[in-house]
Amino acid sequence: MHNDLSRLLSPRSIAIVGASERPGAGSNSIENLRRIGFSGRIYPVNPNYPRVHGMPCYPSIEAIPATEDIDCLAILLGSSMILPLLEQAAARGISAAWAFASGFAEVGDDGRRAQAQLHELCAQHGIRFCGPNCVGFVNVHARACACSAPLPLHLPAGRISAIAQSGAVILAIANANRGIGFSQLISSGNEAVLDAVDYMEHLIDDPHTDVIMAFLESIRRPREFQQACRRAADRNKPIVVVKVGRSELARKAAVTHTGAVAGTDDVQDAFFRASGVARVNSIDELLETAEAFAHLKDALPRGNRVGLITVSGGELGMIADRIEGLPLRFGEISDASRLKLRSILPAYSPVGNPLDAWGSGDLKTAYPDCIETLAADDGLDMILVSQDVPMGMAPKQIEQFSDVARAAVQARRLSSKPVILFSNVSGGVDPAIRSILDEGGVPCLQGTGEALGAAAALVRRAEFRDRRRAPRSESAPPTDVEELKSRLRGSNGVLPHPLALEVLNAFGITVAGEHLVHTRQEAHAAMAAVGGAVALKVASRFIPHKTETGLLQLGIASPSALDAAWDRLHFNMDGHHAGVPIDGILVQPMAPAGSVEALVGVSRDDAFGPAVVVGLGGIFVELLNDTVLELAPLGHDEVRRMIGCLKGSPLLREFRGRPRADEDALVDLVVKISRLAHHLRDDISAMDLNPVMVLPRGEGVRIVDIVIHAG
Amino acid sequence: MHNDLSRLLSPRSIAIVGASERPGAGSNSIENLRRIGFSGRIYPVNPNYPRVHGMPCYPSIEAIPATEDIDCLAILLGSSMILPLLEQAAARGISAAWAFASGFAEVGDDGRRAQAQLHELCAQHGIRFCGPNCVGFVNVHARACACSAPLPLHLPAGRISAIAQSGAVILAIANANRGIGFSQLISSGNEAVLDAVDYMEHLIDDPHTDVIMAFLESIRRPREFQQACRRAADRNKPIVVVKVGRSELARKAAVTHTGAVAGTDDVQDAFFRASGVARVNSIDELLETAEAFAHLKDALPRGNRVGLITVSGGELGMIADRIEGLPLRFGEISDASRLKLRSILPAYSPVGNPLDAWGSGDLKTAYPDCIETLAADDGLDMILVSQDVPMGMAPKQIEQFSDVARAAVQARRLSSKPVILFSNVSGGVDPAIRSILDEGGVPCLQGTGEALGAAAALVRRAEFRDRRRAPRSESAPPTDVEELKSRLRGSNGVLPHPLALEVLNAFGITVAGEHLVHTRQEAHAAMAAVGGAVALKVASRFIPHKTETGLLQLGIASPSALDAAWDRLHFNMDGHHAGVPIDGILVQPMAPAGSVEALVGVSRDDAFGPAVVVGLGGIFVELLNDTVLELAPLGHDEVRRMIGCLKGSPLLREFRGRPRADEDALVDLVVKISRLAHHLRDDISAMDLNPVMVLPRGEGVRIVDIVIHAG
Repeated sequence: MHNDLSRLLSPRSIAIVGASERPGAGSNSIENLRRIGFSGRIYPVNPNYPRVHGMPCYPSIEAIPATEDIDCLAILLGSSMILPLLEQAAARGISAAWAFASGFAEVGDDGRRAQAQLHELCAQHGIRFCGPNCVGFVNVHARACACSAPLPLHLPAGRISAIAQSGAVILAIANANRGIGFSQLISSGNEAVLDAVDYMEHLIDDPHTDVIMAFLESIRRPREFQQACRRAADRNKPIVVVKVGRSELARKAAVTHTGAVAGTDDVQDAFFRASGVARVNSIDELLETAEAFAHLKDALPRGNRVGLITVSGGELGMIADRIEGLPLRFGEISDASRLKLRSILPAYSPVGNPLDAWGSGDLKTAYPDCIETLAADDGLDMILVSQDVPMGMAPKQIEQFSDVARAAVQARRLSSKPVILFSNVSGGVDPAIRSILDEGGVPCLQGTGEALGAAAALVRRAEFRDRRRAPRSESAPPTDVEELKSRLRGSNGVLPHPLALEVLNAFGITVAGEHLVHTRQEAHAAMAAVGGAVALKVASRFIPHKTETGLLQLGIASPSALDAAWDRLHFNMDGHHAGVPIDGILVQPMAPAGSVEALVGVSRDDAFGPAVVVGLGGIFVELLNDTVLELAPLGHDEVRRMIGCLKGSPLLREFRGRPRADEDALVDLVVKISRLAHHLRDDISAMDLNPVMVLPRGEGVRIVDIVIHAG
Repeated sequence: MHNDLSRLLSPRSIAIVGASERPGAGSNSIENLRRIGFSGRIYPVNPNYPRVHGMPCYPSIEAIPATEDIDCLAILLGSSMILPLLEQAAARGISAAWAFASGFAEVGDDGRRAQAQLHELCAQHGIRFCGPNCVGFVNVHARACACSAPLPLHLPAGRISAIAQSGAVILAIANANRGIGFSQLISSGNEAVLDAVDYMEHLIDDPHTDVIMAFLESIRRPREFQQACRRAADRNKPIVVVKVGRSELARKAAVTHTGAVAGTDDVQDAFFRASGVARVNSIDELLETAEAFAHLKDALPRGNRVGLITVSGGELGMIADRIEGLPLRFGEISDASRLKLRSILPAYSPVGNPLDAWGSGDLKTAYPDCIETLAADDGLDMILVSQDVPMGMAPKQIEQFSDVARAAVQARRLSSKPVILFSNVSGGVDPAIRSILDEGGVPCLQGTGEALGAAAALVRRAEFRDRRRAPRSESAPPTDVEELKSRLRGSNGVLPHPLALEVLNAFGITVAGEHLVHTRQEAHAAMAAVGGAVALKVASRFIPHKTETGLLQLGIASPSALDAAWDRLHFNMDGHHAGVPIDGILVQPMAPAGSVEALVGVSRDDAFGPAVVVGLGGIFVELLNDTVLELAPLGHDEVRRMIGCLKGSPLLREFRGRPRADEDALVDLVVKISRLAHHLRDDISAMDLNPVMVLPRGEGVRIVDIVIHAG
């Protein structure tokens, strides 16, 4: 329902049903309009009062003269009154409304029914409806609001908007007092009609919104959410989210099955990464990251090499400690820059990056020269200025630190690199200093962790932008894909082994060396063909756990051992699984000692599509849940990065006397699997290649076990 | 130098050399005294002015009438003037001074010499000297200061003090504007005379200080620092530190040698844990954790079971996500509490812990009843109230949230459990609400992460207190320890194998099953005694890496294999290490398959004493640096907790078909090793038992390789 919300969110006239002077929502709504400087018409509606807050009060909606044009209806009455009032509104031609009351879907079956009726009624009459069960919205630039809670005395205008299902979060943002300016703040509540996606679409088109913050408890329409994120990317409007629900991860049962390893939160995380959405973990981070984007979304760093300048060796050390683990690094500055710094600072000051530029305390000339030197250095992509500038400082202190702010602005201007000034104490920002920085395009952030996190978000955003710009080789599907799909549609559940092989083969993945046999003679021939020790395994999609019932026999090195193993396998089969259909017996070469165990999986999320999971070293997967997940399709570089993120990735290097493993072959396999997952996303719900043995460099990978779920 | 610093830090009269009206330190120093309400005498000294800031100005220290008693001398002149001025001060009987100027140890050899002279001079005349190269100090309760930078217009008095080497950090704390009250703020600078330990000792005795914050770049006198921490614990004054230098960790070379695994930062971390010092990572955390202690140090939680109450389901989810990974958990509330909550809240509100107590929005009666119910529940040790209360809210909003604050205070009073209210936005705290909370003994913290971190610090502090109270069974040394020590003093470097065994044996540690042999015949006898496959290893402290040169032969299963291995060993010995003295040849049983590899090490830190390192699963140690370190001696519970912290600890459980390992035996070994390390701390510098094979449950541990460094 991406449609025009201007009457709702930028009303020129608003009727307030339940207007009152008694403390509460009915009074707050009017006081808020006055506080924010609403210049349109207000029509208080309440049969109990002739006047409210000095305005004539109407006994009902109908009583408002028909000549008056009402853009938006604010309903401050209880849940039972909402439907009748919307009927009246519709009759009156009102096409936008907000209701505060709770008592709908959140209260059980009756409430759900009422909410469905509400939805129905609004759909029927084309009413853009906000809520119910929410505090409403504020449009700072339009000086309009419909809000049940008292707004702060000062709500600065800016270019950041917010959407939250939680009213308390919208209030926290409005009240935050971190000196950040807003465009629109929208509490979406139960989302009976309009939901977070509708508001996102609206904000993407809002000329006063540059950055969208979202505090999400659930993503109601994931596909539309994805589209909105794409459109926001097209329009260069960064999105910053808090998505509640990370801790579900912890409750997840472990581990080897990719479906379990990958979880909803993992998939959402992968989606956010793939979509350039910055995910953060607190409201403070939400605000500071949005503020950084508001200033720098059009001046993103070219890379992750930061320069840091401070007037405190102590803070410098603390910040260096905090940079570890973030996708930031201190860039190397050139010899020329070192020489220049050497000439600026006293002989006893060490020069380099990060830089303590206090020197002899000259913040008028030496400090600006230092920061300009860093900003001009080709080895640095972004300049971070650590400078504590909280509110309440003495005037002389403000004066001194204003010099730092001016130097930061100057460096930004001369270098056109992004510059961030941040305060290591989150005690507000001195307004004079903020105004210098604001005018100079330098965000002033609060909190060491929040600021570094925001800098990291800028770096990730730049990478996202570059990925989008790069020509994408989403290679075409294989020519016979349609035929394959139609055969998959005939299957259900786990694919028979031969079909699973066909699916892999169609995407260029070969399972080398294995033989599917049906007779003892064939088994001997296969073993001879392998030319070394083999494993025997019953191939049957109806028997998931083969080790437990002895349907896997390892390390068979002689014909007589093969005979014995063949007999054991069939004895166990008869004992445990008599009559279960099998595809045959797999004769596989034993993986050479020193291979690295990997898993490659696919797990399709109903909303976000197929995700590819990679893990290394069975024990790392099982004990540490050491897997990475990204949405398909993936390029070679992305897969290489994924594997590099694994704690077990050093296993691929020469290690404990074992040769270097064939990482390239693993990367290639994952890319192909991701392409398969992408093109067959409607036909394959999950896939598990586990284990995949990564052989020594140059020898490729060997897929040992294949489970593909059709459907 | 734990001595009386009252003349320095609570001066009743102060002479300011370099006093001036020109902007700068010479003017700031006087303005600061006035701003803070200094009631003592001020003697400006400057030959260039007859009057300064309306006060008579003296041309020199000598010019101040001898009848005037000068407690403290503030020196705002350059480095070259400091020594002569201190001479004059000494002549005048002044026994406390502060100097602002830089230009000492930080500027190279000349500066170091000057600083040594300064130290000498002060020692000689008994001058308590603060600095140089620092911004000075503020004593808020005494209304005294000597400070070169402009102090904030309002510096609230409270019970938290701070020490920082970095002047910028002391300024950041003074300016922080987080509404926290201070006692003394001390910038220690170069610490030419008084250092952080002296100030700590002073603050431990300061009746206005309840909590000590320290921002440390280096710990100059670790032993005295430890003593100060112990005394602070005795006096129940919590210490909160930022210790810069975590990122040195990253630079550390890897991994298997415990000396490398344990590092300075690890040891310091262990010391902080063992001493009840709360280590944090930012200035915001420093302030909020200190604030929590200031209110609750005498009402620590009995355990880690928190109750959380909010008016926002969204924030509740975010907080739950953030609690993961902290030593906090949501406690289970009783059925009676559930029933009670059920009767308070509307039928549609889910009840439990964490609790969204918004209900129908009744914050006057329902909300207080909810919080009281949680606070009264025996399943909860601490109540967290999530409520955003930043500055700048509308008066009506303040009124509403004041009800929440009053409910929190009431719950604190009735239950006598600790209660923390925290704001998820760090935008200050409304003063009216803070005052309600302050009077009620409820800290009001800012920031989701900061508040949860502070709650975790309270829990750790309670554990520390309980550990200190518990009778400590630091079992006596073995009776023959003195004889052992005298023999160790005769050794140097790596101990010969027989002596190493004796050392272990003295502490009840046996190395079972191995035989040190010298002839082929003895080797055969030893193999027969073992009764299974054995390994042969050359025992020589002069050959650290035996595998590389073939001095370790594994899996010898027959007498003929033994002969062959014996020959190979001697061939390799002759080839690579001809003439190197050996202790003999070790015949060791092969560890049974399915044993878990562990390492147990000792690394003595010159300052903090012996630390014990434990790691599990060779690959986890090598790839993930998965080890834990604590200071010796250790009890069984502590060691069990250490092992539980290892990522590889699940390896000890039944796993991949392997039986449960003998964790108890490993714990016992580590406890004994810690006792050994403690009693032999002056004689053994490092020890490496690596690998130690942990056998299946009931079968104990087997120490495979022993390296003990005497010295």
